[in-house]
Amino acid sequence: MTKRSIFTELDPMFHPRSVALIGASGKPGKVGRVLMDRFLETGFREFYPVNPVEQEILGTKAYRTIGEIPGPVDMAIVLTPTDATLTAVEECAAKGVKTIVITSAGFGETSPQGKGVEQEMVRAARKGGARIIGPNCVGIYCPASKLPYPLPASFEPGSVGVISQSGFFADYLTQVASANGIGFSKAISCGNESDLTATDFLEYLGEDPETKLIIGYLEGIKDGKRFHALLQEITRKKPIILWKGGRTEAGARAAVSHTGAMAGSGAVWEGVFKQAGVISVRSFEEALDCLYAFHLQPLPKGRRVGIVSGPGGTAVGTTDMCLDLGLTVPRFSLRARERLRKTLPPVINAISNPVDLTLASLVTPRVTGDAVRILLDDESVDMLLVVAVIGGEQLRDIIAEAVAASQKKKPVVVTIMAESMQSVVQDVPLFLRSGISVYSDAARSAKALARLVERAQFRARRRGALRSMAGRKNEKAKRARNLDVITKALQEGRITLSEHESKACLRAYGIPVTREREVHDGRAFRETLAKIGFPCVIKASGPAVSHKTEQGLVHLDIRTRQEAINAFTQIKKRAGGNSGSILVQEMVHGVRELMIGLTRDAQFGPCVTFGLGGIFTEILKDISLRVAPITKQDALEMIEEVRGGHLLGAYRGMPAADISTLVEILVRVGEMGMEQPRIKEIDINPIIVSGTKPVAVDALVVLE
Amino acid sequence: MTKRSIFTELDPMFHPRSVALIGASGKPGKVGRVLMDRFLETGFREFYPVNPVEQEILGTKAYRTIGEIPGPVDMAIVLTPTDATLTAVEECAAKGVKTIVITSAGFGETSPQGKGVEQEMVRAARKGGARIIGPNCVGIYCPASKLPYPLPASFEPGSVGVISQSGFFADYLTQVASANGIGFSKAISCGNESDLTATDFLEYLGEDPETKLIIGYLEGIKDGKRFHALLQEITRKKPIILWKGGRTEAGARAAVSHTGAMAGSGAVWEGVFKQAGVISVRSFEEALDCLYAFHLQPLPKGRRVGIVSGPGGTAVGTTDMCLDLGLTVPRFSLRARERLRKTLPPVINAISNPVDLTLASLVTPRVTGDAVRILLDDESVDMLLVVAVIGGEQLRDIIAEAVAASQKKKPVVVTIMAESMQSVVQDVPLFLRSGISVYSDAARSAKALARLVERAQFRARRRGALRSMAGRKNEKAKRARNLDVITKALQEGRITLSEHESKACLRAYGIPVTREREVHDGRAFRETLAKIGFPCVIKASGPAVSHKTEQGLVHLDIRTRQEAINAFTQIKKRAGGNSGSILVQEMVHGVRELMIGLTRDAQFGPCVTFGLGGIFTEILKDISLRVAPITKQDALEMIEEVRGGHLLGAYRGMPAADISTLVEILVRVGEMGMEQPRIKEIDINPIIVSGTKPVAVDALVVLE
Repeated sequence: MTKRSIFTELDPMFHPRSVALIGASGKPGKVGRVLMDRFLETGFREFYPVNPVEQEILGTKAYRTIGEIPGPVDMAIVLTPTDATLTAVEECAAKGVKTIVITSAGFGETSPQGKGVEQEMVRAARKGGARIIGPNCVGIYCPASKLPYPLPASFEPGSVGVISQSGFFADYLTQVASANGIGFSKAISCGNESDLTATDFLEYLGEDPETKLIIGYLEGIKDGKRFHALLQEITRKKPIILWKGGRTEAGARAAVSHTGAMAGSGAVWEGVFKQAGVISVRSFEEALDCLYAFHLQPLPKGRRVGIVSGPGGTAVGTTDMCLDLGLTVPRFSLRARERLRKTLPPVINAISNPVDLTLASLVTPRVTGDAVRILLDDESVDMLLVVAVIGGEQLRDIIAEAVAASQKKKPVVVTIMAESMQSVVQDVPLFLRSGISVYSDAARSAKALARLVERAQFRARRRGALRSMAGRKNEKAKRARNLDVITKALQEGRITLSEHESKACLRAYGIPVTREREVHDGRAFRETLAKIGFPCVIKASGPAVSHKTEQGLVHLDIRTRQEAINAFTQIKKRAGGNSGSILVQEMVHGVRELMIGLTRDAQFGPCVTFGLGGIFTEILKDISLRVAPITKQDALEMIEEVRGGHLLGAYRGMPAADISTLVEILVRVGEMGMEQPRIKEIDINPIIVSGTKPVAVDALVVLE
Repeated sequence: MTKRSIFTELDPMFHPRSVALIGASGKPGKVGRVLMDRFLETGFREFYPVNPVEQEILGTKAYRTIGEIPGPVDMAIVLTPTDATLTAVEECAAKGVKTIVITSAGFGETSPQGKGVEQEMVRAARKGGARIIGPNCVGIYCPASKLPYPLPASFEPGSVGVISQSGFFADYLTQVASANGIGFSKAISCGNESDLTATDFLEYLGEDPETKLIIGYLEGIKDGKRFHALLQEITRKKPIILWKGGRTEAGARAAVSHTGAMAGSGAVWEGVFKQAGVISVRSFEEALDCLYAFHLQPLPKGRRVGIVSGPGGTAVGTTDMCLDLGLTVPRFSLRARERLRKTLPPVINAISNPVDLTLASLVTPRVTGDAVRILLDDESVDMLLVVAVIGGEQLRDIIAEAVAASQKKKPVVVTIMAESMQSVVQDVPLFLRSGISVYSDAARSAKALARLVERAQFRARRRGALRSMAGRKNEKAKRARNLDVITKALQEGRITLSEHESKACLRAYGIPVTREREVHDGRAFRETLAKIGFPCVIKASGPAVSHKTEQGLVHLDIRTRQEAINAFTQIKKRAGGNSGSILVQEMVHGVRELMIGLTRDAQFGPCVTFGLGGIFTEILKDISLRVAPITKQDALEMIEEVRGGHLLGAYRGMPAADISTLVEILVRVGEMGMEQPRIKEIDINPIIVSGTKPVAVDALVVLE
């Protein structure tokens, strides 16, 4: 389906002229009653309750079946009991309904049989040319079209789009945020996705000109590659805030019982989000906090925060929070300090950053506005964090005025610690409606700013970066060369390649490996020693050999012929049953050990991983991951993301590692994943930085 | 001052019979007016406004000076302008006032002259036998005595004690929490601490039988050792929740301008808090969240959480959050599952953990209570996290009943995601007053539970642990032996010891070091080679040698006499100008490298540090720290706290490291810090685990 067509196909769903509510009810406590109330409240014009027994519900004429409705019906919302749902869908299809939203639950999320019924419903719908949203969802909220959700949300339209695999998330978010003055373009809860999926709606919202920001909750998706490509494309234009539920194993178990979606591995999702610049959140409150920041604030040019705080204690604590998040709290410019000194009352002797307004901010509220105005005009800070001890309209006006005067070029977030939590909560819509992001705790304000910086940096990095095609031109030739080793292994019925074979694959892709030879007898061994030279490494070889180090089958740093012969004899003896070839390779010295790997994810396909190598890999448990193919920029970010990445710079008398070669290796490993479908896993560990040059010292390729 | 005496001395301050407000005012906007209002509201009986011009303020007779008040005055609150404050204090002393709370600011926090005035005020007060709280503070809030703060807090007494170096923190916390039904015993804002300090009040609250929990905000303290000892003692009986402001360098700069307290290094404070089991928080909201948990909930027996969730999406996300925090979400017992199946309506088919109540929890609210009651009675979970989509009195009663039936043996925290933020905020006092900790986000609920687990584990660890006296008996002898090396260095005007000398110090304290000899000429070198054997290490030695590795002055893993002689010649050549002694030492092989250090903190004294060694130290930037003397339990916790500590177990064919020797080394380094005042720093890096045994391979001792 092309992009144009998905927008053309899905957009009418959000603008139905007529809606039937199958399972409408007048009985309090029923969902059918709740939705009746909402449709009556919004005053949706061509709205038809359908109920097998009632002739009228809450003063509105009801129909026994959808077929009895006189005119055409664009959308049906199905609330029937589980076992009556298939019939309802068939009736909708017969009526020529275009969109069927199935709110009823008890299908694929509870049993395989339920999955079967879902498929029957899709077939039935398709016959009539209808599409299904759900089952097990709350469908569509669209203020502009007066399409309501069960919870009472405002119908002021706006530019935020919601996509959710949890009906509650979509419903609660639109209710809470719209009550605080945030307007939505569309919200979609897609439930079990028997037909239309979250990915479809993501694509739609990406194209939708009314949607400027996308926020959502997802547990798993069915088409990883398309989803990933869409994220990458859309985040270039619109911020995407996502909460991924089921990141942990137990969370994923809970997710399976919830919507029946494949929850996938947490690490892969994290890599996907980073690669695509998705703003990843981990709770409802965090999602809301990010929404308030991204919807209302411009992106900052740098990471320098100016802090304007009423009480001194919060000034100190807020500075800590900003620094913890990688923001800086620099000195103001001389000019700004002069202006602060002249403008603020003399009791405020602190013109340093943070500005500590002391009790003066209580007695003379306008000092907060003065400080904000002066600092918005100061080149030494990129954004402001205000902590206020009075809230209300007065403060709102003071800050809104200062922000307006500065033409909204820098983010300003406000923390209110005033009177009571009740009054703070009342202040939230007041400030949000005036375009000021507001929080009840300075830690949340600081975090919101840090997320804005994160996106600003993502955009700056992506601006120039084009998808690298490096090395692609020769891919055919390389693949041919490489196939030999893999073909041979498969012919022999093996799924693991030996270290030497694995390195042959790497070499075919231009990845630097140790100089080495595999030998089978004493004569070849002695000849090879002369060629490789000393110091060298002698290892047992062959596809059946694993855990070499633990078994004493690796002898490192051999300096003399005698040591070499001893090692040869010892390995031959220990290897015993094994076919017993021996690998002689150059000894690579270097303290900096790295790890690069390839794995295949069921949803996203081949993924490249990077981390520190050797025992670091296990100690740090800190690996960056990206979905292949990866660009040079992706590779650079993978290296920077890992703790200890700075170790690759000049360090303790060692020269800086050759990062461009490392980047090249990462890109090539991604290409191997794309081009060699028989390769299931690659583990290059360690890659040792020898001088400046990274060299693959040990490697393992596992086949499918 | 003994413990008894500080309680006896300070307790009367919280129960004054008569209070004078010097600087009382009737003018709106003045602090003097705000406090007038509060005292009139509380109906404090013997309350005297003092104002140089007014004869009556808000209907209450005012006095020109404190001296004119007829009866005795126990407490004076001084709000006068900065330059009138000393006089006011003198008048208080003359009147025989016992406690002088100085709210006025502009003293030590702004200038050294201000510090001088503070000292004069203390002298003046002492003459009359008075003690000072402040200046630059809001003093004491004590509901039982009707002593108010400027912000309107409730006067229901309770058992929470507050100690704060930020007036706003104390004032705002008591206001917000008391409005939510949390009762306070006493709150103290101690400002610049010209006389009485936070440490004094910490000791007081520790002894105070009315205080069961202490919460506070601190930026720096003046008597680290006493403070640390008090924390360790008090946390055995009462939980202490502390927010340390000025953890980061920039935060500390802000702190200095704020209260003039020494903010100290963040890492040392973190170590102090961990060692003493303080619940460390980093924002106001986090402090409040912890208060609501610790004040109301029992401690859990383990880390197993049962999750009862209305909406499915939040069930999944909440599971993730619990797992992220190290909690577990186990299967319920067979019995509990049977009971859930029988009790809950059939639509709830999920009897797994999390229990997903679906929409049933909206239609039939009592199902939440049923699930809670059954799970509180289940042995397979230690605590419950409830996520509710309806709040209000009905839910409160349902949960309160279930909790009461279980006799409050397990923590239960509730997350409310209902209707609007306004309604959630209204629910907070409703639930807290019924003893149920309540949050607006599941992430905060999970975090609260994790903090309870943290304290439960701290108590379990401390229960059996006695302060270890291991190795103390021989300290005299050891010290004598050790003094030689240090004395010699000091006589020679050196402040660094050579590696060999440093190891002599370690050896004197029983710390295992490499076999090694220092030699000065070729003959001794050759003789030594035979004694040390191969493989060995040859290094340049002598106090002036530093950065040996970077300078090529270290030759590792030397296997033959010829290699040794080459190394000797090369080092002699490179060392050039240096006096040129050579260290020959055994080569210690081992992948696991550790670091142990000693530093001296200006406030807390000698501190022991532990981390992974070699390049790990810099990569991880992850070091645990404790203040000396440390117990074996402290040492064990230091090892466990460090990322990669698990590396010390059996690993990749290597045996588990000898932890008890490692613990012993840490304890001994602490003793060195206590007993050797001339030692400023020790850096043992690396300690290599050779087989199972940790051996100090390189060491540096720096003298004062």
